[in-house]
Amino acid sequence: MKWFRFEQEGKVGIGVERDGSTYDVTAQVYTDSLFEVISREFEVDLDLDIAPLLKGDVRQLAPYIPARNVICVGKNYADHIKEMDTAGAGKFVLFTKAPTSIVGPFEPIERHANLTQQLDYEGELAIIIGTTGRDLTPENALDHVFGYSIVNDVTARDLQKEHVQFFRGKSLDGFCPFGPVIVSADSFDPRDVLVETRVNGELRQSGSTALMLRDVVTILVEVSRGMTLEAGDVIATGTPAGVGHGMKPPVYLQTGDVVEVSIEGIGRLQNEVQ
Amino acid sequence: MKWFRFEQEGKVGIGVERDGSTYDVTAQVYTDSLFEVISREFEVDLDLDIAPLLKGDVRQLAPYIPARNVICVGKNYADHIKEMDTAGAGKFVLFTKAPTSIVGPFEPIERHANLTQQLDYEGELAIIIGTTGRDLTPENALDHVFGYSIVNDVTARDLQKEHVQFFRGKSLDGFCPFGPVIVSADSFDPRDVLVETRVNGELRQSGSTALMLRDVVTILVEVSRGMTLEAGDVIATGTPAGVGHGMKPPVYLQTGDVVEVSIEGIGRLQNEVQ
Repeated sequence: MKWFRFEQEGKVGIGVERDGSTYDVTAQVYTDSLFEVISREFEVDLDLDIAPLLKGDVRQLAPYIPARNVICVGKNYADHIKEMDTAGAGKFVLFTKAPTSIVGPFEPIERHANLTQQLDYEGELAIIIGTTGRDLTPENALDHVFGYSIVNDVTARDLQKEHVQFFRGKSLDGFCPFGPVIVSADSFDPRDVLVETRVNGELRQSGSTALMLRDVVTILVEVSRGMTLEAGDVIATGTPAGVGHGMKPPVYLQTGDVVEVSIEGIGRLQNEVQ
Repeated sequence: MKWFRFEQEGKVGIGVERDGSTYDVTAQVYTDSLFEVISREFEVDLDLDIAPLLKGDVRQLAPYIPARNVICVGKNYADHIKEMDTAGAGKFVLFTKAPTSIVGPFEPIERHANLTQQLDYEGELAIIIGTTGRDLTPENALDHVFGYSIVNDVTARDLQKEHVQFFRGKSLDGFCPFGPVIVSADSFDPRDVLVETRVNGELRQSGSTALMLRDVVTILVEVSRGMTLEAGDVIATGTPAGVGHGMKPPVYLQTGDVVEVSIEGIGRLQNEVQ
């Protein structure tokens, strides 16, 4: 099942998609906040037989703004390490993106032409935490996952380098397209799915999550060591090879470029640079 | 005026201190959340003449848990850069600490002996954002400040190095003592105040904010460039010389050590390593 947040005729609601049909379940989850659905203590038994079908124009929104920064794993695909600076290869590199950088499907990636001349994309699988916990084990880690989504870890390469620490080059407004849906953990296996990124239709990234140096379970175990993960946390799992910075010569995003990140079984996250 | 959050006989409330007296203003601010006081759109006119005096045992709590990671400025005092790795000297280094690392006055700093052998302190002045904004200017930056507080940017030096990016070594549970109060911007000048840290009573850090390479206004201008700062955001402004890692030989925090960070005009933030 896929969860999403939508706007229709000025109203924001929560929808689900199952077996090709989409339903408005706002009344059944008692909230228009997908963060609340994910982080609340009780589970809602959805009854899709009585849920109204979603018809007509529906605009999908960013699933939600998390209650802390998006946690990102760096250097998690060997081929991406090769195309980039190899410093820190093999290390478990973690950094964060500000929640203010999140935008939804089809919302603009702000160009920030006054701040960066090296705007780049990074298509990534995102883990959505459903149950708060710490010191997760390989055995129980997946029990803490609500589902999976897509983020585009947009990066200003020049700022990433200039500021030494990645945070600022990763956190300008508009730098974290997120969505379009969250696929529930019971209907998605993250171990071998293709992460693809296209720019203006041209395939740039295409790598399976099977190539991750640290897989989803390992990430959850290592991130949660001594640091509590909370329901609603978003963890971006790193990007495969094929970013613009790694091309010879490098090719950066320009105003008007359309970036699409797609993951099998989740969907397609499309945004234009503006 | 100083704002704080307190617990008394199981009740959580908001207090203020003015001219040496402390008042319970929970009923006047209509909330027990200091984050809400800071981030709401309207201003409350406090009438301390009718506010009940706070008497008896009051336990001060962490002012609040912000809605995103604490933003931290690294390498902001020349003498601290000298005692540490000098890589990145002069750069505007920004990283973050997870909100789950926040603890209040007198709450324990968790030792995490299984994860780090190099636990260290960093006493810092914290800026509390009061008004959301982006691309602040030297002229208007201070208008966006609600007040100032203290954080102890507790750091696992070995993890900070091992993970290349600082986030994980800065974000274990208990690694961000915060408080005890927020002093309002109208009654505090951050330009030349002494930041002092003591371990078991021994003075380790003592540096004036006048020694910052980037002062409060410059930090606000640079952090907000292309990245929206939101009401309630907490920005730690860097630490002066004197951390344990810089001693010869290095001296790290051990279980039972008591760390106090004090800043003139704000107060004293004391926590024990447990």
